Amino acid sequence: MSKLLIVGTVAFDAIETPFGKTDKILGGAATYIALAAAQFEVESAVVSVVGEDFPQEYLDLLTDRKVDITATEIVKGGKTFFWSGKYHNDLNSRDTLETQLNVLADFNPVVPENFKDSEIVVLGNLHPLVQLSVLEQVENPKLVILDTMNFWMDNTWDELMQVISKVDVITINDEEARQLANEHSLVKAARKITAMGPKYVVIKKGEHGALLFHDGQVFFAPALPLEEVFDPTGAGDTFAGGFAGYLAQAGDLSFQSMKNAVIFGSNLASFCVEKFGAERMLSLQKEEILQRLDEFKALTQFEIKLT
Amino acid sequence: MSKLLIVGTVAFDAIETPFGKTDKILGGAATYIALAAAQFEVESAVVSVVGEDFPQEYLDLLTDRKVDITATEIVKGGKTFFWSGKYHNDLNSRDTLETQLNVLADFNPVVPENFKDSEIVVLGNLHPLVQLSVLEQVENPKLVILDTMNFWMDNTWDELMQVISKVDVITINDEEARQLANEHSLVKAARKITAMGPKYVVIKKGEHGALLFHDGQVFFAPALPLEEVFDPTGAGDTFAGGFAGYLAQAGDLSFQSMKNAVIFGSNLASFCVEKFGAERMLSLQKEEILQRLDEFKALTQFEIKLT
Repeated sequence: MSKLLIVGTVAFDAIETPFGKTDKILGGAATYIALAAAQFEVESAVVSVVGEDFPQEYLDLLTDRKVDITATEIVKGGKTFFWSGKYHNDLNSRDTLETQLNVLADFNPVVPENFKDSEIVVLGNLHPLVQLSVLEQVENPKLVILDTMNFWMDNTWDELMQVISKVDVITINDEEARQLANEHSLVKAARKITAMGPKYVVIKKGEHGALLFHDGQVFFAPALPLEEVFDPTGAGDTFAGGFAGYLAQAGDLSFQSMKNAVIFGSNLASFCVEKFGAERMLSLQKEEILQRLDEFKALTQFEIKLT
Repeated sequence: MSKLLIVGTVAFDAIETPFGKTDKILGGAATYIALAAAQFEVESAVVSVVGEDFPQEYLDLLTDRKVDITATEIVKGGKTFFWSGKYHNDLNSRDTLETQLNVLADFNPVVPENFKDSEIVVLGNLHPLVQLSVLEQVENPKLVILDTMNFWMDNTWDELMQVISKVDVITINDEEARQLANEHSLVKAARKITAMGPKYVVIKKGEHGALLFHDGQVFFAPALPLEEVFDPTGAGDTFAGGFAGYLAQAGDLSFQSMKNAVIFGSNLASFCVEKFGAERMLSLQKEEILQRLDEFKALTQFEIKLT
């Protein structure tokens, strides 16, 4: 059983989609990553920060799933990071209505002693300097996975380049990959991003699936065609969590294993979007994941025999 | 060897992309369908119409590939159908600059006697009444494949419904599927379109691949990630031609065989977009298709063993 270290936000989200809207609910990148990874046999910890307003029952949802949250600081008198957004009708784009950094503004991540030897580290979307600080505290991880977004490209380019140069895998969406590489072609973009450091580049295309690039090779995991996407919030983080969780359980970091990992990432993400926020991830059972794996096989596997 | 009957336009195109522009070059749905299908062991014929201005050398390109064009009428003094269009920078959308129907306005398709017993019929994008007329002339085909577009939905809805009710497979792009079914979800749209008649619904998503729906099942063929898409003109027709050509050669119309057919459709289309118009299809060799089939396998096939 590998150790998996996750750093990222644990937060409140308020979401509006064409199907309805929520009050403040459980959110945050590290939450989604940890909930997805918890579906695998892993020993995981979340390094994060919340305010005193954060309900114990939300934290219990993580500890119930054997996620170590001793390094998730609860700031006395502080308020938890809050994001609210509204999705457009096709659910492919959204507007941020409000962002309150709150306790995240002074987040100083401290990796717990017993997770300094983590084999796999997931750096959830955060300020690159915070991500770098975590990397400095871990001892020789086998695989570091980075998630980031356009905001850091716009505002902290140099710091972002520093962290990108130190990771093994980057997961990023298609528009962000184009911005990062200044290339429209995703094939060319992936090559440029590889030159920045990561040996593996995962480009997430939402409902259009995900591409895994490595050393001139490419693998594609489709998104499962769904009757309805209810709420895309957290799907990208859930993908990263499924990806990392599978690899931690498998203990195999070959390209072959990475292919399976993106299939599991896509698998887990396909559940995440079925309900508001993390709701579906909280009810998700392992048997459902295995059943959906069969659906992914039926969706993609073929056998051509040429005479 | 199955007989394959193709009806559709044989035409002039003038194309402008961010990479350059062409004068009048060889185009037309039936041209692309026939060139793609000619890569397989099939006996094919094209029912179409051109004007006296159409160069013999263009017609020779088809006969050189053993495509029977005796039912492609050359109208004395007539001018060939002409389309010109300009692609936007991302190549995902285009504006039609000019359409001259010319001889197509009075096109009265006549199926040759020796192709009335064709096993497979491809009804390329044309007025639904022209498509219906072809169907009335063939005797008990095993598989009828229909291509159409939003123009016929806007202008000839009832006639389109008539032809859709009589075909086995419809190939259509994602926006057209949404319009035809009045459903944003492609899963729901495919179900509604199936209720209109076709047992198989193929939804083409361009660079995002193609979905094959049948009887509650779904299969996905990705588009090959390319360095650069040079000109998307004819890619959809090439897909249909590869799909039909493979099925005609295989002589197997099971769902399993249909899966392989969409892979070959995507395979052939990935070549079509590499050069202007039909240029790449004219130089394409069978060995290149088999090599690319290996690339499609590497792109999609995985093996997950769970302990």
